[in-house]
Amino acid sequence: MTAIDHVVHVALGERAYDILIGPGLIAEAGKILAERFPGRRYGIVTDDNVARTQLPLLVAGLEAAGLDYAVITVPAGEGTKSYQMLESVVEGLLAARLERGDLVIALGGGVIGDLAGFAASITRRGMDFIQMPTSLLAQVDSSVGGKTGINSPHGKNLVGAFHQPLLVLADLSALDTLDRRQFAAGYAEVAKYGLIDDPEFFDWLDAHLDEIFSGGPARGEAVARCCAHKARVVIEDEKEQGVRALLNLGHTFGHALEKDTGYSDRLLHGEGVSIGMVLAHRYSTRQGLAPGQDAGRVEAHLKRAGLPTTLGDIAGTLGSTDTLMAAIAQDKKVQRGALTFILTRGIGQAFIEKNVDPATIRSFLDEMRGQ
Amino acid sequence: MTAIDHVVHVALGERAYDILIGPGLIAEAGKILAERFPGRRYGIVTDDNVARTQLPLLVAGLEAAGLDYAVITVPAGEGTKSYQMLESVVEGLLAARLERGDLVIALGGGVIGDLAGFAASITRRGMDFIQMPTSLLAQVDSSVGGKTGINSPHGKNLVGAFHQPLLVLADLSALDTLDRRQFAAGYAEVAKYGLIDDPEFFDWLDAHLDEIFSGGPARGEAVARCCAHKARVVIEDEKEQGVRALLNLGHTFGHALEKDTGYSDRLLHGEGVSIGMVLAHRYSTRQGLAPGQDAGRVEAHLKRAGLPTTLGDIAGTLGSTDTLMAAIAQDKKVQRGALTFILTRGIGQAFIEKNVDPATIRSFLDEMRGQ
Ligand SMILES: NC(=O)c1ccc[n+]([C@@H]2O[C@H](COP(=O)([O-])OP(=O)(O)OC[C@H]3O[C@@H](n4cnc5c(N)ncnc54)[C@H](O)[C@@H]3O)[C@@H](O)[C@H]2O)c1
Ligand SMILES: NC(=O)c1ccc[n+]([C@@H]2O[C@H](COP(=O)([O-])OP(=O)(O)OC[C@H]3O[C@@H](n4cnc5c(N)ncnc54)[C@H](O)[C@@H]3O)[C@@H](O)[C@H]2O)c1
Ligand SMILES: [Zn+2]
Ligand SMILES: [Zn+2]
Repeated sequence: MTAIDHVVHVALGERAYDILIGPGLIAEAGKILAERFPGRRYGIVTDDNVARTQLPLLVAGLEAAGLDYAVITVPAGEGTKSYQMLESVVEGLLAARLERGDLVIALGGGVIGDLAGFAASITRRGMDFIQMPTSLLAQVDSSVGGKTGINSPHGKNLVGAFHQPLLVLADLSALDTLDRRQFAAGYAEVAKYGLIDDPEFFDWLDAHLDEIFSGGPARGEAVARCCAHKARVVIEDEKEQGVRALLNLGHTFGHALEKDTGYSDRLLHGEGVSIGMVLAHRYSTRQGLAPGQDAGRVEAHLKRAGLPTTLGDIAGTLGSTDTLMAAIAQDKKVQRGALTFILTRGIGQAFIEKNVDPATIRSFLDEMRGQ
Repeated sequence: MTAIDHVVHVALGERAYDILIGPGLIAEAGKILAERFPGRRYGIVTDDNVARTQLPLLVAGLEAAGLDYAVITVPAGEGTKSYQMLESVVEGLLAARLERGDLVIALGGGVIGDLAGFAASITRRGMDFIQMPTSLLAQVDSSVGGKTGINSPHGKNLVGAFHQPLLVLADLSALDTLDRRQFAAGYAEVAKYGLIDDPEFFDWLDAHLDEIFSGGPARGEAVARCCAHKARVVIEDEKEQGVRALLNLGHTFGHALEKDTGYSDRLLHGEGVSIGMVLAHRYSTRQGLAPGQDAGRVEAHLKRAGLPTTLGDIAGTLGSTDTLMAAIAQDKKVQRGALTFILTRGIGQAFIEKNVDPATIRSFLDEMRGQ
């Protein structure tokens, strides 16, 4: 049951690394690490869900390979991307007496990858780390590209570092213990790659949606294609000074909604992105940029995946439009007062627009709230 | 009274920057910044002592130049290099709505430089910053080279980032408001440069000690020579993988003593370094590496500067040798159990020794406690 089905190389010069994709990789990690990084010790950072479902496999493999490790477990959930948990992970790594040449393993979803990667980057002014993404979202998006960080009361991901991993192991078997809602949330980022600049991939997804959700071979292929896409973008623009911003399609709206719902179970990150992508398409249509039928296709596709697509799909009461606008203005993609949004000319034709007038966004949001 | 007496260029490729040294530079900073970095906003981080003595000059200059700024003031003292203050500076920068292209100014001693530089490096995944060192220690050492960070309960500077400033303004006039004890503590780092590999500089210092302390032209020359020395080392080894470690002469002992005295007024950083340098010389003599008379000269010179030079010079009771050894072992210069120390063959002949036997350090410390 173990096979490295796909290898994606992230060619970042002296920071280059591989993404290995296949079933059973967490159980095999001990063997892989002993070969690639002899003589290191490991600090495993994980959350309590993943500690239950995946950690035993990793630990058994490390022990079989004779590797020395310490485990740091934090609570599951977005609230864990906090100053307090950052401190506790860093202090845990130091308490385990990990040295500069040792390795941090981020075993979990995007929350763990972001938190553990950031902790690694600041412990002893920089330790190397390995991503072992266990959620779909983490496998196709957050584990690749080196963005790490935590949230601030002022907004998501406002505190962090660019810190590339040494290796990414995306174990397809891990997705079997992920619940359906989380899987769907991760799927929003899968669809995103098609929507940005790959309409053929979007068509392929539309044809293989059921197989991806049920765990057929299309699932591995989807993960690999997403990683390859993200790797290409990151190679071109490691520090997000240009084209990498396209990956934020749906995210400015999404972040504002996540903030408004308190980064809680009311709205998962990928669910915010799903609504955000539909809003980006609808706004682009409203501005006469994109055909309305594309917005309709996007919405129908994400609905089929079981994702929320409108403001009304969010449980409970949303904050005022003013509150949402304040969150949008604080998003880190704002430059000198003008709003930057990823807009689109249609499926697979997204672009960066730096001069969006806040007033048009405000009235658009007001209207969308009514629906 | 304003003059740029010395310019030291730190040639770090795309991270290259200048160190400007002279009197009155804080008051002139508005003009200098408006010219070099048009259109930016500024987040000034400072401590309450420096807010009283130097901030008014800076603020007046920024206002005269029409620059927009926010001020974040933290308590003075080593205790400020903490997770809590890091969070409060980062949140302050975000609350001031500083954007990625804006600049953080570290106005203060090494504590402020380390804290504000680290905060800049993680705010919005990396903001640029400017060092305006106001203590002697910061002017000759901490403001140059890009090491930033905070302390952990496990030891000093264990959490941080390499983050080079865009510019360093070392205002010699600022040293006039620094008290004598702090000036002497900074002087320990000045002497360090001679002790590492520049015996001629050490002789020059011996001849100009009084003039440096009283504020004659030798003071500016000493600052410039130290900056040039540090710049050379940093260019050769930015991330401290080799020769940069020589700058830690006296610091492994010093950090253990600082930890033991609770990073308090009982022992300033430079005072710990002073004792540490004497211990490094004495230990090297004991090991038959260096002539005993050099250790004697070092001790006499630092005494003349008003610095403590023995364990007995520290007020109050020190912890046990076990406690000191534990602190030494946790110091980040430890690799796989063996202790790394900077030892010496005599004045100006320091070297990195990676295989120091902990037992010899322990018995040496036991002996030194008796004196
Ligand atoms: N760094 C980046 O480039 C980047 C990109 C996109 C998203 N992100 C971040 O990623 C985070 C979202 O990631 P996420 O959706 O993976 O969140 P997550 O890490 O919270 O994981 C979602 C939930 O699934 C559980 N889980 C994960 N793997 C599991 C498994 N195999 N079996 C059972 N349960 C499992 C987790 O415990 C958690 O409860 C957000 O914080 C977002 O900002 C970062
Ligand atoms: N980053 C590096 O490479 C590096 C190198 C050496 C030291 N350091 C760090 O630097 C710190 C020590 O620096 P420091 O000695 O400057 O400490 P500091 O910043 O605490 O300054 C010492 C005291 O002098 C006061 N002060 C500073 N400038 C003043 C002025 N012009 N007038 C009046 N008061 C003034 C401060 O308020 C403080 O009370 C330590 O934390 C040490 O770890 C860092
Ligand atoms: Zn996302
Ligand atoms: Zn020092």
